[in-house]
Amino acid sequence: MEISHELAIGIDIGGTNTKWGLVNHRGDIIRKGDLKTEGYPTFEAYIDALYNTLTPVMEEVEDGKTVKGIGIGAPNGNYYKGTIEYAPNLQWKGVLDVTDLVSEKFGLPASLTNDANAAAIGEMMYGAARGMKDFIMITLGTGVGSGIVANGHLILGHDGFAGELGHTIIRPGGRKHWATKLDGSVEAYCSATGIVITAKELLATSTQESLLRNYALDELDSKKVFDCAIQGDAIAAETYRFTGQILGEALANFVMFSSPEAIILFGGVIKAGNLLLNPTREHMEKNLLPIFQNKVKLIFSELREADAAILGASALVWEQRD
Amino acid sequence: MEISHELAIGIDIGGTNTKWGLVNHRGDIIRKGDLKTEGYPTFEAYIDALYNTLTPVMEEVEDGKTVKGIGIGAPNGNYYKGTIEYAPNLQWKGVLDVTDLVSEKFGLPASLTNDANAAAIGEMMYGAARGMKDFIMITLGTGVGSGIVANGHLILGHDGFAGELGHTIIRPGGRKHWATKLDGSVEAYCSATGIVITAKELLATSTQESLLRNYALDELDSKKVFDCAIQGDAIAAETYRFTGQILGEALANFVMFSSPEAIILFGGVIKAGNLLLNPTREHMEKNLLPIFQNKVKLIFSELREADAAILGASALVWEQRD
Repeated sequence: MEISHELAIGIDIGGTNTKWGLVNHRGDIIRKGDLKTEGYPTFEAYIDALYNTLTPVMEEVEDGKTVKGIGIGAPNGNYYKGTIEYAPNLQWKGVLDVTDLVSEKFGLPASLTNDANAAAIGEMMYGAARGMKDFIMITLGTGVGSGIVANGHLILGHDGFAGELGHTIIRPGGRKHWATKLDGSVEAYCSATGIVITAKELLATSTQESLLRNYALDELDSKKVFDCAIQGDAIAAETYRFTGQILGEALANFVMFSSPEAIILFGGVIKAGNLLLNPTREHMEKNLLPIFQNKVKLIFSELREADAAILGASALVWEQRD
Repeated sequence: MEISHELAIGIDIGGTNTKWGLVNHRGDIIRKGDLKTEGYPTFEAYIDALYNTLTPVMEEVEDGKTVKGIGIGAPNGNYYKGTIEYAPNLQWKGVLDVTDLVSEKFGLPASLTNDANAAAIGEMMYGAARGMKDFIMITLGTGVGSGIVANGHLILGHDGFAGELGHTIIRPGGRKHWATKLDGSVEAYCSATGIVITAKELLATSTQESLLRNYALDELDSKKVFDCAIQGDAIAAETYRFTGQILGEALANFVMFSSPEAIILFGGVIKAGNLLLNPTREHMEKNLLPIFQNKVKLIFSELREADAAILGASALVWEQRD
């Protein structure tokens, strides 16, 4: 079978919704859709619903094309074991044998990794990291995720859980993370959640006028901070400068670890553009040894946010052995 | 040729002395010696001296044995390019084409990497990391070096300079490093030099009695701090506790990066034993996400310090292609 005739199914399991897509080798999404993740009595029932959704899609694949396999991105996904383990955002607790269940139900090989690793693979295959063998993908959304590629391969670690850069400590004794209870982690500052906390802290410790004061504190979200920042609001701008400083310091540490060709930023928070990128770059460079300075490309993802998770998950299929 | 008949030359280039050894596949050092690194008019003259030292050694290799190649560990050594680049502790400046010169002079393949990476390879082949595919080696000496192995291979990065964990920032805005001028790096606290600075700071900010006060401040070195600590001196003990806290926090970050099976500590500073290891382990575990807790082995190197650099350098030879 020529590889140009092969298709892959990419599935992105989120806490609320599951997105799926049928993808070719070029990264074109031929069909896509979604279904609810919540509301099934068991994980098996959810897999059944997924199967019932995808069966007509697979049956409609045109003659001469074939579906090679299924790739899945999921929170706390473990590539080695094909399991989702203790994912705080999913209704099913404990260890879920995802790839076993899926490949038995679908009769196709299935691979799984965490969502940030899937995004990194997608970026390497279809996006800004094409042709790169060493890069780090940082996803800045509700949380901060990461996928690290070294010498052309994901760093998975001895247990499959490597690449939790959002939970590294960048301010020892600093802001306590609402869920992990760790002090001063990158995610506590650089996630959308962290940005809102920073804005509230700045509002509380100053009497400066700010557009942000037009909102009740519990209405503030990262989108409003962004909107105020592009209108030139000083406290909103300082929120991004501070976020960029912390992110830049953290990125410097990551560079001295794996010396990547590029760091690729992805996720809702990067809508802030240069408001975030400029201070991030400044503080990254400032904290690097000279041998690393002015070498690392700090760039935004080239994948559409809505598609990246599906593309990344589907890309796992091309790495499956026949 | 059976591999059991092959020998490797390992060379460790230090600022003052160069050590060499003839090593077999089991890691037995069959012959070893050293020569001065300093005092040659050119780098070529130094390589000539090395050649003149090693020629009789190679000629005496018993019948049926053969020298397969030369492995070199050196500060700022670049594996990809075979160069030493801007090493602050060597008298020759700029970029030195080490492997080209060595392999031309000796007529043997030559490989080179930095000293910490060589130590990691040595540990994987002959020491505490035998059989491991994911581990991090931290050398705690005058400086703090590191070698990171993921999936059985050194992480070298896109330019060959990966693995500078000693220069990652663990206390933003903290102690300025005497040479790099970075604020709050791991090396500024956890090297032998950093330990002495910590002891002096503790002496300066307290009036507590201490055996350390028997020495003039400029006489204090890490050995004296250690000697006082094992005699139960409170300030010397606090020096190690604080050093271990910083090291533990840093190790937690490294674990969340590459999720190693083990972290192997090496170098003069580890003579402190549990004085250092206990607080290091405590603060590493405290800063890890639950999925990483109580999984990472924190152990000391099994290689004799005097031999490790030679063994590590020689081990590069077994990775050379024929």
